Amino acid sequence: MSLPRSDGRAALALRPIHFVRQFTCHAEGSVLVEFGRTRVLCTASVEERVPPHRKGTGKGWVTAEYSMLPRSTHTRSEREVKRGRPQGRTEEIQRLIGRSLRSVFDFAALGERQIVLDCDVLQADGGTRTAAITGAAVAAWDACTWLQQRGRLAQNPMRELVAAVSVGLLRDETLLDLAYEEDSSCDCDMNVVGTASGGLVEVQGTAEGEPFQRRQLDALVDAAQVGIAELIGLQKRALGLE
Amino acid sequence: MSLPRSDGRAALALRPIHFVRQFTCHAEGSVLVEFGRTRVLCTASVEERVPPHRKGTGKGWVTAEYSMLPRSTHTRSEREVKRGRPQGRTEEIQRLIGRSLRSVFDFAALGERQIVLDCDVLQADGGTRTAAITGAAVAAWDACTWLQQRGRLAQNPMRELVAAVSVGLLRDETLLDLAYEEDSSCDCDMNVVGTASGGLVEVQGTAEGEPFQRRQLDALVDAAQVGIAELIGLQKRALGLE
Amino acid sequence: MSLPRSDGRAALALRPIHFVRQFTCHAEGSVLVEFGRTRVLCTASVEERVPPHRKGTGKGWVTAEYSMLPRSTHTRSEREVKRGRPQGRTEEIQRLIGRSLRSVFDFAALGERQIVLDCDVLQADGGTRTAAITGAAVAAWDACTWLQQRGRLAQNPMRELVAAVSVGLLRDETLLDLAYEEDSSCDCDMNVVGTASGGLVEVQGTAEGEPFQRRQLDALVDAAQVGIAELIGLQKRALGLE
Amino acid sequence: MSLPRSDGRAALALRPIHFVRQFTCHAEGSVLVEFGRTRVLCTASVEERVPPHRKGTGKGWVTAEYSMLPRSTHTRSEREVKRGRPQGRTEEIQRLIGRSLRSVFDFAALGERQIVLDCDVLQADGGTRTAAITGAAVAAWDACTWLQQRGRLAQNPMRELVAAVSVGLLRDETLLDLAYEEDSSCDCDMNVVGTASGGLVEVQGTAEGEPFQRRQLDALVDAAQVGIAELIGLQKRALGLE
Amino acid sequence: MSLPRSDGRAALALRPIHFVRQFTCHAEGSVLVEFGRTRVLCTASVEERVPPHRKGTGKGWVTAEYSMLPRSTHTRSEREVKRGRPQGRTEEIQRLIGRSLRSVFDFAALGERQIVLDCDVLQADGGTRTAAITGAAVAAWDACTWLQQRGRLAQNPMRELVAAVSVGLLRDETLLDLAYEEDSSCDCDMNVVGTASGGLVEVQGTAEGEPFQRRQLDALVDAAQVGIAELIGLQKRALGLE
Amino acid sequence: MSLPRSDGRAALALRPIHFVRQFTCHAEGSVLVEFGRTRVLCTASVEERVPPHRKGTGKGWVTAEYSMLPRSTHTRSEREVKRGRPQGRTEEIQRLIGRSLRSVFDFAALGERQIVLDCDVLQADGGTRTAAITGAAVAAWDACTWLQQRGRLAQNPMRELVAAVSVGLLRDETLLDLAYEEDSSCDCDMNVVGTASGGLVEVQGTAEGEPFQRRQLDALVDAAQVGIAELIGLQKRALGLE
Repeated sequence: MSLPRSDGRAALALRPIHFVRQFTCHAEGSVLVEFGRTRVLCTASVEERVPPHRKGTGKGWVTAEYSMLPRSTHTRSEREVKRGRPQGRTEEIQRLIGRSLRSVFDFAALGERQIVLDCDVLQADGGTRTAAITGAAVAAWDACTWLQQRGRLAQNPMRELVAAVSVGLLRDETLLDLAYEEDSSCDCDMNVVGTASGGLVEVQGTAEGEPFQRRQLDALVDAAQVGIAELIGLQKRALGLE
Repeated sequence: MSLPRSDGRAALALRPIHFVRQFTCHAEGSVLVEFGRTRVLCTASVEERVPPHRKGTGKGWVTAEYSMLPRSTHTRSEREVKRGRPQGRTEEIQRLIGRSLRSVFDFAALGERQIVLDCDVLQADGGTRTAAITGAAVAAWDACTWLQQRGRLAQNPMRELVAAVSVGLLRDETLLDLAYEEDSSCDCDMNVVGTASGGLVEVQGTAEGEPFQRRQLDALVDAAQVGIAELIGLQKRALGLE
Repeated sequence: MSLPRSDGRAALALRPIHFVRQFTCHAEGSVLVEFGRTRVLCTASVEERVPPHRKGTGKGWVTAEYSMLPRSTHTRSEREVKRGRPQGRTEEIQRLIGRSLRSVFDFAALGERQIVLDCDVLQADGGTRTAAITGAAVAAWDACTWLQQRGRLAQNPMRELVAAVSVGLLRDETLLDLAYEEDSSCDCDMNVVGTASGGLVEVQGTAEGEPFQRRQLDALVDAAQVGIAELIGLQKRALGLE
Repeated sequence: MSLPRSDGRAALALRPIHFVRQFTCHAEGSVLVEFGRTRVLCTASVEERVPPHRKGTGKGWVTAEYSMLPRSTHTRSEREVKRGRPQGRTEEIQRLIGRSLRSVFDFAALGERQIVLDCDVLQADGGTRTAAITGAAVAAWDACTWLQQRGRLAQNPMRELVAAVSVGLLRDETLLDLAYEEDSSCDCDMNVVGTASGGLVEVQGTAEGEPFQRRQLDALVDAAQVGIAELIGLQKRALGLE
Repeated sequence: MSLPRSDGRAALALRPIHFVRQFTCHAEGSVLVEFGRTRVLCTASVEERVPPHRKGTGKGWVTAEYSMLPRSTHTRSEREVKRGRPQGRTEEIQRLIGRSLRSVFDFAALGERQIVLDCDVLQADGGTRTAAITGAAVAAWDACTWLQQRGRLAQNPMRELVAAVSVGLLRDETLLDLAYEEDSSCDCDMNVVGTASGGLVEVQGTAEGEPFQRRQLDALVDAAQVGIAELIGLQKRALGLE
Repeated sequence: MSLPRSDGRAALALRPIHFVRQFTCHAEGSVLVEFGRTRVLCTASVEERVPPHRKGTGKGWVTAEYSMLPRSTHTRSEREVKRGRPQGRTEEIQRLIGRSLRSVFDFAALGERQIVLDCDVLQADGGTRTAAITGAAVAAWDACTWLQQRGRLAQNPMRELVAAVSVGLLRDETLLDLAYEEDSSCDCDMNVVGTASGGLVEVQGTAEGEPFQRRQLDALVDAAQVGIAELIGLQKRALGLE
């Protein structure tokens, strides 16, 4: 039997999720996404140029950058620019966000242009990478709509929405959408990215301390798939798609 | 006779100014400041350590960092971490913010601790450095109150409030608090930092194109001093000091 | 029914695997591991110091670095030192190797010392990260034996061996231990790290192009677990443990 | 009543000023400027290319770089190349020198070429940035003459000369052209850049410690304007223009 | 009279020298060279592009890079990428290797293409730079043969072979081909690069501690020339040229 | 028979050599050295600290840095700080200067302090490294005298003077002290460093294009030794030692 969590949630419940569209005024898509106290500003910028490997192919590209404001966390972190380069963790997360978003794009339909997704964490309480993917998908959708409204695209190059959630094992119980405190005490931390049609894009599970068992892996993926379906429903509502 | 400005303001009127305190939850002071469409998140972080030149002196320190989110501007700018270091403009601005705030601190009263002011521009429309100084002063005040409330300080180490505003010359007319479009077309751009008691902390005037005349310099400083007094009134109201 | 692969292997067969111990003379553990044409030199260096977060805890640490020689690949790659920093991919791999090896260490038994695992790819043909983990485990075991033989450790601080293998989906068929050509044409690429006792340490699956389905995920993990068990048998034989 | 200064100067007297033209042989303009013990080598290099934002515009550009030799100061400073990048102070100064010189150039008359001003401090005793601007103006003038003598320019693209001086407040007295010791003890430090025709190009005043008052600002600018006029007279004499 | 050395060699004897050609499979030339326990992997990569200063000249280029694996040495060295740039020693060595190889190339015969020589030290015991030059010459020869076999070159652009050896003074005795221990205790360390036809390409002698005398310089060069002739014989045998 | 050189010198004549001591005022030794048109400012800074490998040994250290001002050369070179690090050539030269000066120091007599030699090229016309060594020796001597005069050293820790000169082969003729034009056209370029007592410290000869012969090497060293003896006479005269 499952005990309530520190914020009273059930083991398989998401935190309160909010999307604030048009949070800033310059970007073609601009979404503040909240997973509980985690708040990430996701902007989608349309650029009429592509990286070298796409030039002359007629196909577009989607890339992502991720950063945390220095005091988004409990104690202040040094800005990465002071070390002269992003940390390994940052690069790993922005590669993940980029791959996740690219998985739902039809690049021929996008045409030879690029969408840059900037995910800047204003406030962190666990799950910043999954919030970033989930918010970036909404911002990217808005940018695609912006292109269609200006007649620069005939159809939406995003085939479907994509969302992400974390799951973890705490004393053999599966928890959905971990807050920071929970994440720190879990035996296994997994991030799963999935699409509206039920496909899986990324599964990244890591043992913290002890290795985990195959049946635990299966239970974690089950829980994540339920959470992703719920998040995609919330994305659609925010976008007025249903 | 003075013509109205693009947003209908009088030549010597500020844009709408707002301060949202406790905008994020982790920092000891956290203020979203708005000068019209310019929005800067200013956090004040208390650290119980000081830079080497202060160690063992019993005196504290205040320092500032400044950054613009990549899509805070009309077209996306590259993150500074990608170039490996802050641009000259960024370092110049964060040095200015730091000096401005230090001018109103009693470092012996602060004791051997440091307040770090992070000014991150979420949305830019001119005057980001003056908004940052003005917002950082409110965030720093909140951090000092936080220290007093926890009994870690007997009195407020900030002697008074400090604020900043830009002024410019457009076809020989003095304009207060320039928006981005105005800033680009001005013949002279000046930033002035001043205190609640009427003192001047920084005066930085730069001719754009043609040199300016002494009588124009005097008129610009006159206008800035009026604007600073008004901003300090608004800071006090936001802090509940009057 | 499964067709033979370009090198004639069955879908669920490993490439020829070899471990050459004491490949170089200075390191406490030095193993050249071969997964087919992929050859990685893994050295384990014992250092009598630990990173700051371990100082005074009585516990040790294990960390890893990974690099590819410029002409280990089909066309020459620029040295990372020329760009001034490791690529994101490199940091991601060395973090993975480090976490994988740490999962089988008893750090109290290791004592306050560090083992650094250097994995340098001499020749690449797919699966360099999984070969690196599998070879580094043998090198680490040799370094632990070296410490025991000199009386600096009473028991082996490695609780068990750890190994890694890649799996992929090619036209809905599950393939084990992908060579470079196969890796490039797969629809899904997964790396799995597991231990001698059957535990899972890392599961990292990424859709290349199309998302994958849950039943495919399950089949991939099944195949990987068989491959890991076989690799651990080969590690034990190389170490003379059975 | 004003007391003499450590070197016996009156409060509003400049230090001895010297310009040595053709100090080195390769540059189109090469001037060693001395403000007392402060000695800066200013070279002007003509380059037949412009930065990207000028290409195809028919207009030229002027830019500046500034550096201090490691032992130009009382105690040796580390070379900036060892830290990998210029300090904030250096970038701030070279931006100031560049803006100051650009204010007196007619870029259409210069044509699509660039003048690079290198200001290297051989010996420092306060006021290195004002000496650099004042010396760079003479070096730039020589480079323009060089272009005219070779028939590559029909007229001098410098509309007039520009010079700079520091002023400061010491116990409410205004001092002109501060030496290092004076600079350190002043309550307010201001650098003013002005032109031969009496225009102002830059006014940068900074409170050191206590804020300053408006009447003090006015007195500082008065003193600076007198000093600038005197410096421009000395530049003209050095160039044989009067 | 000369005493035997720590490994029993005569004062003017080389260590055992081996060349393993085709050590890795991707490079056009790939040679593992051994000078005793010193082992360097030298690969020669043919690139159909040249550096800017060769573009459009019809002439090719040869360049070299050098690196030591972190645990090629007795105690582990930090990777250079962690410092962000090669050490001075590394750049000095790779410049030496490049110059040495270029001295025997006919660049018009090579045509507008580049050969990149990567020299990676797998195991170090003194003389890594001389081993690198000697091995790189064999790898370059193989790459030139590869070009001829594919009909991309009519003749071998290498005019002759080049090799290098170290010599040193130990208590006034001349020693050939120093191992690491000997190198550390020598009073003078010299590296000499020479060609098959007896020409000298580089002579680099450095006093360690005491200056050396002219007659000692002459003896050192004598010994080196004998060693180089012997090395070139071994290169030819390895290449099947005699 | 030897033809006069472009400046009328005989093949084995030095250029006019000058030493200006106390060229700047802050450094303990400050010498402007001129080899013809080559002018290098050499400062010697005494620091009461040593690098880590000297701490607690009672012995001192000598190190050198070298840089060229951007317009010391015929066409302007980019500052190294803009690339973020010194070029390979720079590091090679400063290592050479450091080794050369260390060869004449008694580090126990110097005590646990460091002398830093900064060699900044104001004007370049070939032979900057040899001028730098020759000038740095005079600056170091002045710094040692400064230490003795203040009673911080009982005796001079420099055992003797050291100087350097370049030699080259032009159409089989040996030339001493090459100017830039000569250096560019020589077939072989050699730098030799030697001491007052006739010892050799460094011999670095490089074939430019064709390898050189042993008899040519011998003639070059002969010429260099004559030049070094002459330079040491000039150093002594400048220092008032004879």
